[in-house]
Amino acid sequence: MSIPEKALRTFVADLFTAHGTSREHADTIADVLVWANLRGIESHGVSRIPRYLELFASGEANPRPEIGFDQPRSAVATLDADAGPGPVALTRAMDEAVSMARSAGAAWVAVRGTVHTGAIGYYTERAAQYGMAGLGIVAGVPNMAYPGAAGPAVATSPLSIALPAGKHPTVLLDMATAVVALGRIAVLKARGGRLPEGAAVTADGHPTTDPASAAVPLPVGGAKGAGMSLLFDMLAGGLTLNPIVPAFHSGERRHRQNALLMAIDVAAFTPVAEFRRTVDETVEAIKSLPRTDPAAEILVPGERGARCLDERLVSGVPVAAKLAGTLRTLAVESGVSVPEGLG
Amino acid sequence: MSIPEKALRTFVADLFTAHGTSREHADTIADVLVWANLRGIESHGVSRIPRYLELFASGEANPRPEIGFDQPRSAVATLDADAGPGPVALTRAMDEAVSMARSAGAAWVAVRGTVHTGAIGYYTERAAQYGMAGLGIVAGVPNMAYPGAAGPAVATSPLSIALPAGKHPTVLLDMATAVVALGRIAVLKARGGRLPEGAAVTADGHPTTDPASAAVPLPVGGAKGAGMSLLFDMLAGGLTLNPIVPAFHSGERRHRQNALLMAIDVAAFTPVAEFRRTVDETVEAIKSLPRTDPAAEILVPGERGARCLDERLVSGVPVAAKLAGTLRTLAVESGVSVPEGLG
Repeated sequence: MSIPEKALRTFVADLFTAHGTSREHADTIADVLVWANLRGIESHGVSRIPRYLELFASGEANPRPEIGFDQPRSAVATLDADAGPGPVALTRAMDEAVSMARSAGAAWVAVRGTVHTGAIGYYTERAAQYGMAGLGIVAGVPNMAYPGAAGPAVATSPLSIALPAGKHPTVLLDMATAVVALGRIAVLKARGGRLPEGAAVTADGHPTTDPASAAVPLPVGGAKGAGMSLLFDMLAGGLTLNPIVPAFHSGERRHRQNALLMAIDVAAFTPVAEFRRTVDETVEAIKSLPRTDPAAEILVPGERGARCLDERLVSGVPVAAKLAGTLRTLAVESGVSVPEGLG
Repeated sequence: MSIPEKALRTFVADLFTAHGTSREHADTIADVLVWANLRGIESHGVSRIPRYLELFASGEANPRPEIGFDQPRSAVATLDADAGPGPVALTRAMDEAVSMARSAGAAWVAVRGTVHTGAIGYYTERAAQYGMAGLGIVAGVPNMAYPGAAGPAVATSPLSIALPAGKHPTVLLDMATAVVALGRIAVLKARGGRLPEGAAVTADGHPTTDPASAAVPLPVGGAKGAGMSLLFDMLAGGLTLNPIVPAFHSGERRHRQNALLMAIDVAAFTPVAEFRRTVDETVEAIKSLPRTDPAAEILVPGERGARCLDERLVSGVPVAAKLAGTLRTLAVESGVSVPEGLG
């Protein structure tokens, strides 16, 4: 079944409002989650709603955060998320970064102690919408392997970079530091697919391609992905005095995340139109290369998502039957009306 | 044979001075190259000298660059390398970034049109020596595969992050976006080793583990490494109006590189001692994890290099016989005296 994006957005915002968030914050959360669904990133979309509500119920997430913001110098700031939802904290953080970058040329906002981030590409793409380059990293609770260590050691912490183009969609890299993101493993498990070789190990540390027995995802490129994730935690946790990796391994398992978002004002370096033209020319150069399979188009980061967006803005957002049932139940429990297409 | 690092440094600087660089620039180049040798990164050390001199001879590199520097706003600047050696341009760029970050909190310097960068970890570690976090990316001439494209499409462009620790050595990530860096493939070829599966293809696009027939390295994580490299080129090339990927695929094969270096002043966020303690605690948490092989120590990024440094400061820098012969010939041709250990 499919739901028009506007109806889905209203429904999600109604659900969050019913669970204690302000209408403004509920709208932001809905925008971030539906953004992912529109781009085909089902693992970071409305499928996360039950988990958000669980985190509210357990007290790990705060539906009414008092966000703190401190900008000690022209190009850096810290945003204290007060355990508020990631979409609320990170949207504000990127907007502050964009505003600071207008005067400083670039700005870096460290986000302290949020919960689930959502799709980090949402925030970096937001910078690109202002003609800036956006860059973001997240550090979360360990769930990924590290070379030589048994069990989860570091997190599948993502990196995202978004660059404004001209004729082409925003070029948007959004990658976990794992071979395969956890959300994708869950999707494969639900659909009955297989993992590629080298993507995960079982709880006992044995390699597996079965998503049902995959307990610990492996870092991309071994020491490379693991090293990126480790340094993301040190940097985000060190700057915010909220390190997650050492706390986790001392027994502190509470769900939380830190993040770093950066905006670079292209206009400080060069006319934005020139930058956009360079990005367009680079996209076209790559897409025009001789192909290993003549029938298979060469894609650039963000292109698949942009096409999915175009389709789903017309045809609506598909929601799997099981998830639709869960969302209907949550709606009934919360006294929220269920939109057509979810019923 | 082994050469004391000071003697090697003097020899390298003498060689560059004899080939037209100023003494100050020659000392900087020597420092960057010997830094790599001291840390066991032979592929980015004095083995590159013949190539630098070739680039001077062909006119692709400029031994007497007039470096331009423009800082339009508090946190951003562009450094025009005037085709000067990477060590000269990037050392200056990171020093400027550190100086700017002292007032702005963070700073980003785009380097336009240098040649071989050397080990990018040198520059990011330089920021860490000032108690700052250092971050760097480089964009170079395409030599790596891109998913779906035949032949070299993007570059093995590296990413580096350095974080200051307390008791432990600087945590230093320095990774190519390829599974195995080109320099490492050359080392394996010279020594007769094999590549891991999935690291490279032949000129015809067939997978190979033979370093002698490996023509095109593969990106780490497929679309992930390729995407990072592509966006590094768009960002560095777009901000400096010197894009390499589209020019290369239009037939412009001249050797050149762009780079972006960033310094983040930890002190703007938190006392540096606290940050160092967090980094130490994280290092210790990772190294203390249960091991998959109890006999194999868990390492953090930069640890192997720091140990190699400690050893080589005492025992000297080993130089393979063939390279020593090449360097002796260059020395004789240039009227430079050959140090003991290379003779």
